Amino acid sequence: MKDTINNLRRIKLNTGFKKDAELDVAIVGAGLSGLYSAYRLRTGTTHGKAQPPQKVQIFEMGDRIGGRLESVVLPGMTISGELGGMRYLSSQQIVTQLIEKVFADELTPVKFSMGEAANLLFYLRKQRFRANAWQKAQDNGTTFQTRYYLNDDDQGFSADQLFNKVIYEVLTADPWFVKKYGSTVSQTGYYTYNFTIDARQWDDIKPNLTYCFEGPYKGKKVNDIGFWNLVKDQISEEGYTFLDEAGGYFSNTINWNAAEAFPYMVGDFSNADVTYKTIEGGYDLIAYALAQHYLQSSGAEIWAKNKLLSVKHSTNGKRRYTLRFLNIESGQEYNVFADKVMLAMPRRSLELLDQTGLPFTDKDFNYHLESVIMEPSFKLLMGFEYPWWKSMLGTDSGHSITDLPMRQCYYFGTDPDNSHSLFLSSYNDMRTVTFWKALDDNHEDFEPHATQFTKLKTLTPLKDKASKLMVAEAMSQVRELHGAMQIPEPYVALYKDWADDPYGAGYHAWKAAYNIEETMKYMRNPGKAEQIYICGEAYSDQQGWVEGAFCEAEKILRDHFSFNLPEWLSEKYYLGW
Amino acid sequence: MKDTINNLRRIKLNTGFKKDAELDVAIVGAGLSGLYSAYRLRTGTTHGKAQPPQKVQIFEMGDRIGGRLESVVLPGMTISGELGGMRYLSSQQIVTQLIEKVFADELTPVKFSMGEAANLLFYLRKQRFRANAWQKAQDNGTTFQTRYYLNDDDQGFSADQLFNKVIYEVLTADPWFVKKYGSTVSQTGYYTYNFTIDARQWDDIKPNLTYCFEGPYKGKKVNDIGFWNLVKDQISEEGYTFLDEAGGYFSNTINWNAAEAFPYMVGDFSNADVTYKTIEGGYDLIAYALAQHYLQSSGAEIWAKNKLLSVKHSTNGKRRYTLRFLNIESGQEYNVFADKVMLAMPRRSLELLDQTGLPFTDKDFNYHLESVIMEPSFKLLMGFEYPWWKSMLGTDSGHSITDLPMRQCYYFGTDPDNSHSLFLSSYNDMRTVTFWKALDDNHEDFEPHATQFTKLKTLTPLKDKASKLMVAEAMSQVRELHGAMQIPEPYVALYKDWADDPYGAGYHAWKAAYNIEETMKYMRNPGKAEQIYICGEAYSDQQGWVEGAFCEAEKILRDHFSFNLPEWLSEKYYLGW
Repeated sequence: MKDTINNLRRIKLNTGFKKDAELDVAIVGAGLSGLYSAYRLRTGTTHGKAQPPQKVQIFEMGDRIGGRLESVVLPGMTISGELGGMRYLSSQQIVTQLIEKVFADELTPVKFSMGEAANLLFYLRKQRFRANAWQKAQDNGTTFQTRYYLNDDDQGFSADQLFNKVIYEVLTADPWFVKKYGSTVSQTGYYTYNFTIDARQWDDIKPNLTYCFEGPYKGKKVNDIGFWNLVKDQISEEGYTFLDEAGGYFSNTINWNAAEAFPYMVGDFSNADVTYKTIEGGYDLIAYALAQHYLQSSGAEIWAKNKLLSVKHSTNGKRRYTLRFLNIESGQEYNVFADKVMLAMPRRSLELLDQTGLPFTDKDFNYHLESVIMEPSFKLLMGFEYPWWKSMLGTDSGHSITDLPMRQCYYFGTDPDNSHSLFLSSYNDMRTVTFWKALDDNHEDFEPHATQFTKLKTLTPLKDKASKLMVAEAMSQVRELHGAMQIPEPYVALYKDWADDPYGAGYHAWKAAYNIEETMKYMRNPGKAEQIYICGEAYSDQQGWVEGAFCEAEKILRDHFSFNLPEWLSEKYYLGW
Repeated sequence: MKDTINNLRRIKLNTGFKKDAELDVAIVGAGLSGLYSAYRLRTGTTHGKAQPPQKVQIFEMGDRIGGRLESVVLPGMTISGELGGMRYLSSQQIVTQLIEKVFADELTPVKFSMGEAANLLFYLRKQRFRANAWQKAQDNGTTFQTRYYLNDDDQGFSADQLFNKVIYEVLTADPWFVKKYGSTVSQTGYYTYNFTIDARQWDDIKPNLTYCFEGPYKGKKVNDIGFWNLVKDQISEEGYTFLDEAGGYFSNTINWNAAEAFPYMVGDFSNADVTYKTIEGGYDLIAYALAQHYLQSSGAEIWAKNKLLSVKHSTNGKRRYTLRFLNIESGQEYNVFADKVMLAMPRRSLELLDQTGLPFTDKDFNYHLESVIMEPSFKLLMGFEYPWWKSMLGTDSGHSITDLPMRQCYYFGTDPDNSHSLFLSSYNDMRTVTFWKALDDNHEDFEPHATQFTKLKTLTPLKDKASKLMVAEAMSQVRELHGAMQIPEPYVALYKDWADDPYGAGYHAWKAAYNIEETMKYMRNPGKAEQIYICGEAYSDQQGWVEGAFCEAEKILRDHFSFNLPEWLSEKYYLGW
């Protein structure tokens, strides 16, 4: 197994460049959407008179592939941790089929365990309790009291339950919804709700749902107001703060498009039936599998450390577009010519391009570019000599949540060969990212130290080292959350701030009052006369998920390259708007 | 009086352009720093062999002057409201002398009254109380309990007092501080502290102060950590949240440079002796007075609606620099040549320039440019038919504070000719700005309505109109804060979001771990070989204040133009780093 993984990661990146290359398709960005597009363009089939493009090349500014997936094996252990995206849902068909069927020889799906609520903690407003406190009280017919001053009829609900309650009440207050979709939702108990709305149905509901409560928002489309606006109107600002803090992710409760928030929350964060999975050896192996299969096609290269500067119309008759690149190692600028350009890049990366070039020259581009909110996110991974959480909490997986700036920690695995154990000591987003950022700038690195099982020299050099100060502050919060001063020091620590360029954000969220269907279609092909395409999770309807990136790429191939759906994907699978 | 004000505002802006003009100094930006620089360059005196420049012109992208000062008179009343900066401090000598001495014939200083705590409200975590609740309890020897779970020894302190306590304790824990400056601070009671540190002393203290408490930050320079990091370490995350919410401004408690936060908080927000003042008829009249005096000099123009695109070295022998402008009305681009360039622009405006030109070509420029955090801010002004707050609270001035997204409201004056009254129904910043922004996009305007004293036709057309939804949501929060459903509807409402381009922020704050003295000097003249100068509040040591912008301009004139201090300014006045 380990050998397969190591072979998969042994990828050929070309950091040189080829001046004046002429291409059918230039793909910019070796994140998941770029790699998937390249793989599909070189292995898929077309219909009608269209032919699959032959000359397809990937260009990547960084020195690695995978974009916002980045699995790392901390020194001294064999299990892998995630600095970026870490899991998929069993309902996400493209990613599931790829991992479990198409690349089954190379990739092994594993359950991403979320532990048992009884063995996990909340620590909010200095109140520490087990994550099953609400359920336990509900089972006993009592009401669990937090330190949030909730409205009377919101008392006793867990954050997940209260999210569901808000969504259920808004949906069922709209007579249009009740008539057309009433049977898809139900209240199954005082605290519990059930939703069976599928993605196609949501795409009808999202733009049409009306807010039917007295007050400022009466008669507004839910799509036209923010989720913060809506939640506050339903359950008061204190109720909102409870969901904001107890929900774990600030990014879920920013003032993004309320209609888009509904399926996102119901599908992912509130439904007990969701199965999380990942890949043995690291979730970013899906990027490597895609890259390896693409690289098997003739002439295929991934040009790493080559940064796109601008896209302009060709004036020399060579292909349609001239892409200006900077080769980072040599400092030289050069041109590449291509008939079609796929910009597999998130919002911030697009903003770093020359804005006098394409696609900025289209008058509507900036309006649509700004349709998504960039969401900073931050992860701090630590290695410990033993899994101190096992004896303390009785868990070997799952997460605890707090309103401290660390926000969430995840208990990961223990190396089968020794006791070294992996801990995500902070997963935080939005405003808390600045709390940690100040502890990195100009501060001394946290130096790994030897353990019973690891020599010092195997521990250095390391990329993405956390600072000593960052680790000390994080451990002070980890101890406060657990109410346990005896938690030991880590022997190694890495971190990643996805707000740094060129990413600009860990994930993205739609703004209110945009026509999302229209913007998604526009962004896939900005300026209809052009053959420029933008894909990725940023402008998808599964933002923050690899599947969102894949669906956008698939729709571009379908609509602009006359590609057939992959034979391994059910024709019934809904790709979204 | 009204005539003087109207004359002052009758300013000659030239929206045309003059191709290939050759200038001694091109000033870009007709905000306070640009106007002040122009006024001083055309009226000040030099020493040594230097001569004051003769050909000085101001260029401004917008259609008005004043930058982030914008006073408005709402229809139906004569008193003025502020959409931007609204006051100055009696300790700020340049602005004080200008208003009260140099322009005394045109400007009339008036007290900016903050009302009486007994007549103002707090509403936090659904607890409503008078702003003197802490003081009253302290006078009675009891402890006022809020709904924040403060540490035992922080109980009973108001937010202002607790800010002072934190700063006092950090200062006096450092033996270096105690030895050198011990006599400048004292604890005057259980809840009260006194600070007499002057600006020169702070400039010694800020980079040298060491954090001397056990824990992650022990031995760090206070300059190298964030204010959130420090406050949390001192009084817990709940204590921080109390200051964040009860302090009124989120921007004061973001994770900005902790050393810079100290004088800012002690000088402005926590000291009872501070006198706030403003100008009768609107604080932006200082911009108009400066502009009028500059325009009296021969050949002076303010070229409005002319947007700077790039600054490059001249290659045609004409002057040192070529500035490329876009004339917005005609859509034409043209060049201006100048020996010296003053970029009187905040961070975001600078970022919108062509980054292949100056001053971006200096290798250190981006590092210093990014040294400040951009702070969104938002104001919503309303006109009411009568001052409902007078009978309700017994106040005719001051502000109330809440953790609702409106954050702060200010009770302003009543028109002497009728009962029409001005109310700042929300002054909010940082993350709450997004709450309001979603209520503007694509929503119907709030249409002013006639009153007993105002006809409808005098009410329209209006710039900066708030949306109907924004007004409805704001009124719902104003009623919740006051616990009074009977508060009437406004008849008119305007708003301003300073996060919009080209400003990018209402104000700015230094990041932690920068050498601020070095960065301030660098930004005044980025790339020493060049004669390009940046001024404004953004990179000053009084961020958010007009005085900060003036001090930076004055230091540029002193250091790079051989200008004497203005004769009306005391030579003892400290301009800062």
